[in-house]
Amino acid sequence: MTSRLKDVAARAGVSIRTVSNVVSGSANVAEETRARVQRVLDELGYRPNQAARNLRGGRTGLVGLAIPELHSPYFAELAGLVAEAAAQRSWTVVIDQTHGDPDAERRLLEGTGGRLVDGLIISPWSIGPEELTACAGGVPVVLLGERATHGLADHVAVDNALAAEEATAHLLAGGRRRIAAIGLQPHLSNGTAHHRLDGYRTALRKAGVAPDPALEVPVRALHRADGARAMSDLLHGGARPDAVFAFTDELALGALHVAGAAGLRVPQDLALVGFDGIEDARYANPALTTVVPDKRQIAERALQCLADRIHSPATGVPPLDIVVPHCLEVRASTAGTD
Amino acid sequence: MTSRLKDVAARAGVSIRTVSNVVSGSANVAEETRARVQRVLDELGYRPNQAARNLRGGRTGLVGLAIPELHSPYFAELAGLVAEAAAQRSWTVVIDQTHGDPDAERRLLEGTGGRLVDGLIISPWSIGPEELTACAGGVPVVLLGERATHGLADHVAVDNALAAEEATAHLLAGGRRRIAAIGLQPHLSNGTAHHRLDGYRTALRKAGVAPDPALEVPVRALHRADGARAMSDLLHGGARPDAVFAFTDELALGALHVAGAAGLRVPQDLALVGFDGIEDARYANPALTTVVPDKRQIAERALQCLADRIHSPATGVPPLDIVVPHCLEVRASTAGTD
Repeated sequence: MTSRLKDVAARAGVSIRTVSNVVSGSANVAEETRARVQRVLDELGYRPNQAARNLRGGRTGLVGLAIPELHSPYFAELAGLVAEAAAQRSWTVVIDQTHGDPDAERRLLEGTGGRLVDGLIISPWSIGPEELTACAGGVPVVLLGERATHGLADHVAVDNALAAEEATAHLLAGGRRRIAAIGLQPHLSNGTAHHRLDGYRTALRKAGVAPDPALEVPVRALHRADGARAMSDLLHGGARPDAVFAFTDELALGALHVAGAAGLRVPQDLALVGFDGIEDARYANPALTTVVPDKRQIAERALQCLADRIHSPATGVPPLDIVVPHCLEVRASTAGTD
Repeated sequence: MTSRLKDVAARAGVSIRTVSNVVSGSANVAEETRARVQRVLDELGYRPNQAARNLRGGRTGLVGLAIPELHSPYFAELAGLVAEAAAQRSWTVVIDQTHGDPDAERRLLEGTGGRLVDGLIISPWSIGPEELTACAGGVPVVLLGERATHGLADHVAVDNALAAEEATAHLLAGGRRRIAAIGLQPHLSNGTAHHRLDGYRTALRKAGVAPDPALEVPVRALHRADGARAMSDLLHGGARPDAVFAFTDELALGALHVAGAAGLRVPQDLALVGFDGIEDARYANPALTTVVPDKRQIAERALQCLADRIHSPATGVPPLDIVVPHCLEVRASTAGTD
């Protein structure tokens, strides 16, 4: 039960001011009085108002995490890790879903200008980096999952192009030549997808395989349903692939479902690689080969950036560009292909 | 950019007090002065401190959502829906992961006693309802996913026993008789699991099938890995089931993975039903039959309860027990079994 200073003062037979001095740790109270007041505070279960206490330090103790959607397993896993890492720093995470909507991102950033949060982690963002940092109004911002930050804010990501090249090279090493890429989003300025496409094309070029535009399949969103639709289009379009590199595990799982339903044997008829290392990939039938970003390190490094900026705002350290490790976890969906 | 009252006062040539009066809308300022100060406020992009503004109204504008883990797809989907419904009420959601740990739940509730949030939605909780409401210190609390609330707080859930009975009856109608139940958690006071077990046993009893303790498989947690382990135990234990009712979709997907790897045909050799209606279930190979709770309605009703308690704290309305609808979505993992 939360009691108020007035109740405590009445019970302890002192002024509200004295209770306030005890609560704030002021030296201005006789030891005997302090002990009596503290006893009453304990008895009544008094807790100082958290919001007011934080305000006094000029900080809210809140860190914002803006992600396109919580129900996406990749972002859900990442949000969980950010919340854990934040708790270790006694921060609470306020999570906002932007649905990749520029207006939602703008509103959110303007909210941070109002100082609801001490810092903000945002991934990925539809509005440009200039507008982004202008909107944030001096609150430290860390960007995830996008490389073209123009040095305007700290940035944490895997090397998307390299990871995509490795995933494609793995399929090429297994003898695949008609490798589809599922996940372009031409209607969005999705930098991550661009980098993954670059990596895919680089691998093909290095292997002397001409890219086939019919095998580069755009999607509306990055969900299972979009991957399923893309796979159906590939199967009915006559541009039959012998492998698929999907830009997210969700896309890959949708494609895998359609391939299975169409009677294709995976990996014999079709090898599949995803990206994100979500838990679902491990338990797919068959288990999905995937690029696994070190999500724990993404969360850790992003919070470390915020902590450094919040605690030493004026050090003049230029924005950091932090690349975290990834690995390709080979499973049954490509087994025997290398 | 966020400016401080001091900067505004200097630029407008007035006292900080006058700026403060303008910001707070006090009547105590000459119209000409007010206009001048407001112009400077606009020029400098001043935004009132959100936390302070909320404090003045006695509210923080934050609603807490405490869930065992964000990376679980069910809770991630639910959290997404709660965040959406909260945004419609101009609330921001603070999400906390408890990992089902009683101490974490206690800390969280004691935090709400300190009034970081205006209200709290918590699901599921390891500590008992008496301790729960005592800890919350007057902040409205809504419980999800557990029925034994003893009328101490508003409560929103599906009818877990009925839904489990329907899922089991669906398998029985398809001629299955050796139906395993995966998902008891004897080491936790997991009320939800108890209700699902009750429903499973009720269906067996009504069909005249004697329950076989060897088919009731306990799990440590509710993840794919636990479902995989339980399925392995069943396959190697000699108590071969012809169907599985798993208490979560994640458990079911783990079991499905092991069944597939063992060469069992689903549903011919083994029919499977899950619970939660997560997106992954739809795209499993084969697609998973599952009990689908109306998660959007869970989120809506929980926030409506909080809104009512926050805005009319003293109406004396007794705690509500709200049952939201569910349905059994039949897919390929049980196709032909009824």
